[in-house]
Amino acid sequence: MDKIQMKILETTSLTEIKSYLNRPSNMQEDVSKIVREIFEQVKEKGDNAVRELTLKLDKVWLDEFQVTEKEMLASMEEVDTELKAAIRQAKENIYKFHKAQSPANISIETMPGVKCWTRWVAIDEIGIYIPGGTAPLFSTVLMLAIPALIAGSKRVAVFTPPRQDGSVHPAILYAAQLCGVHEVYKIGGAQAVAAMTLGTEQISKVDKIFGPGNSYVTEAKMQAILRGVAIDLPAGPSEVLVIADKTADPAFVAADLLAQLEHGADSQAILLTSDAALALEVNRQMQVLSANLPRRNVIEKSILHSFTIIAKKELIPELANHYATEHLIIQTGNNEFYLEGIRHAGS
Amino acid sequence: MDKIQMKILETTSLTEIKSYLNRPSNMQEDVSKIVREIFEQVKEKGDNAVRELTLKLDKVWLDEFQVTEKEMLASMEEVDTELKAAIRQAKENIYKFHKAQSPANISIETMPGVKCWTRWVAIDEIGIYIPGGTAPLFSTVLMLAIPALIAGSKRVAVFTPPRQDGSVHPAILYAAQLCGVHEVYKIGGAQAVAAMTLGTEQISKVDKIFGPGNSYVTEAKMQAILRGVAIDLPAGPSEVLVIADKTADPAFVAADLLAQLEHGADSQAILLTSDAALALEVNRQMQVLSANLPRRNVIEKSILHSFTIIAKKELIPELANHYATEHLIIQTGNNEFYLEGIRHAGS
Repeated sequence: MDKIQMKILETTSLTEIKSYLNRPSNMQEDVSKIVREIFEQVKEKGDNAVRELTLKLDKVWLDEFQVTEKEMLASMEEVDTELKAAIRQAKENIYKFHKAQSPANISIETMPGVKCWTRWVAIDEIGIYIPGGTAPLFSTVLMLAIPALIAGSKRVAVFTPPRQDGSVHPAILYAAQLCGVHEVYKIGGAQAVAAMTLGTEQISKVDKIFGPGNSYVTEAKMQAILRGVAIDLPAGPSEVLVIADKTADPAFVAADLLAQLEHGADSQAILLTSDAALALEVNRQMQVLSANLPRRNVIEKSILHSFTIIAKKELIPELANHYATEHLIIQTGNNEFYLEGIRHAGS
Repeated sequence: MDKIQMKILETTSLTEIKSYLNRPSNMQEDVSKIVREIFEQVKEKGDNAVRELTLKLDKVWLDEFQVTEKEMLASMEEVDTELKAAIRQAKENIYKFHKAQSPANISIETMPGVKCWTRWVAIDEIGIYIPGGTAPLFSTVLMLAIPALIAGSKRVAVFTPPRQDGSVHPAILYAAQLCGVHEVYKIGGAQAVAAMTLGTEQISKVDKIFGPGNSYVTEAKMQAILRGVAIDLPAGPSEVLVIADKTADPAFVAADLLAQLEHGADSQAILLTSDAALALEVNRQMQVLSANLPRRNVIEKSILHSFTIIAKKELIPELANHYATEHLIIQTGNNEFYLEGIRHAGS
């Protein structure tokens, strides 16, 4: 029962704290080699290579990769009403936020007779990778497909690993429809990225690849660059940094940490606080909240490289900048202090 | 004398034309291995590795890499007045154009009680790579350092290969000072990228690396990503696509093509036109204009993989999209027609 506990580190040495804040390095020679071979296979044998890799890795043989219109329609029935309403609400919110960010064209005369202007143009063909596994990441579908919808991309194709019965989770299909996704393919892993990059009989190549994935998918995206296809960014394992003080609700802090820890065994969650009592209470709450979580087994692994650092308030922005987290959550009585000092974070 | 000639290709088959429009692939196993070794050396031996590589590749031994304040000041004297005025004018123009593009923060309420906002933050520490060679690329200094200046980056460090006497071209130093660059280092090649990525005794690591370079520099930037440092984009060889019709001045078209061809032996220049007479006249002008160019020997090589395609006007936007050029130049009587149809181009 005491497995779900964050190690608590406390020191006044900035250098020492910084040394804790390193994430595991990700240089994997053999991943690179395996992915290169997958690209070669897909280049040579096209769909057949994808079929064989899908059988080997996802345990299902597929003649056709694309989700049919019938399957798309069926998803409308299969997702329960409450979840559908939540997905629709999320779509509305994400749409509004991205629509407000649409960039404007500018036009200025830098010197008499020299007119300089910008013209934003949507990327024509987008490939979106949605990881498989036990959690259907329809949220990722929403967050990647909606900007493409707003920009006006001509073709948005989602790639996601099939389940063993050859289907895709209906919540993913429901979200895809809602965002105007044009095609969904039952292909996962590096072979999906290779197919988007090179094209096969059933799949036309895309201009740019978006989306998270494991180390094989990430390596495949890096190799896609070398073959002339753009990518969003090389995603590492999921991570969160929570900054909290004594005004924070320990249950909320614990929930935020757990939400990231359940992503994968390689996820990392860090709590930065100046309050030792909060650190202990968050640990207690993590135990309570994780007791019945279906993904508790994942959390038991990812908690091993996660920890709490107790540090002086003044040092916290610098530590946060040093780590430069993917996800940053601030729960304090003086959020502005941290916001002003923090310059490096994803979202 | 007839060496500086573009091959003229003419066909009505779109598929055939598209097959011409491929650029040479850039998968170089041995470049990757050499660069990995350079990273290992710099990681292990720091400045000493950089010194040895600089001696080997740039033929000069440097104890100190950073350009001194004295050298910076001397550049003010060494650059002639006319060039200084031109650099200042360019700085003004580039500054105005980028300033006008400064992104605005947004803040919206996506649903009652849920406030979503963006906050743009400058990247703290920037490394800019400026290629060496015979042409001092002070224009690249301007185009990369000015956005960092506008954004408010805390540290902008320029890296450029030393000349054999251990100096840096004064025009580069003059441009750097004008843009508020904080440090200039006499280091080139993959060793510069490795030093920016890993840090050494004399060089602190940066957050993001910008700038063009040869295949070693580009490969090094790719390897920097794997070590946690961001890059702008992997730059290929320089290229230009010029679209011109019978209203274009053939001398201008020829000059635009030559300006790109003289970048490097691997540069590619393409002229797309519906007018066969223009194609011939451009070839004639290229001969005239290139006769006395100091970099004619470079052009003699790069012209070998450059060509003119004569195609129907209606096909030209699609062909341009297929090639998706780095630099696009349109010189026609109906520029709007091409602008509307072209969706893939750098600038």
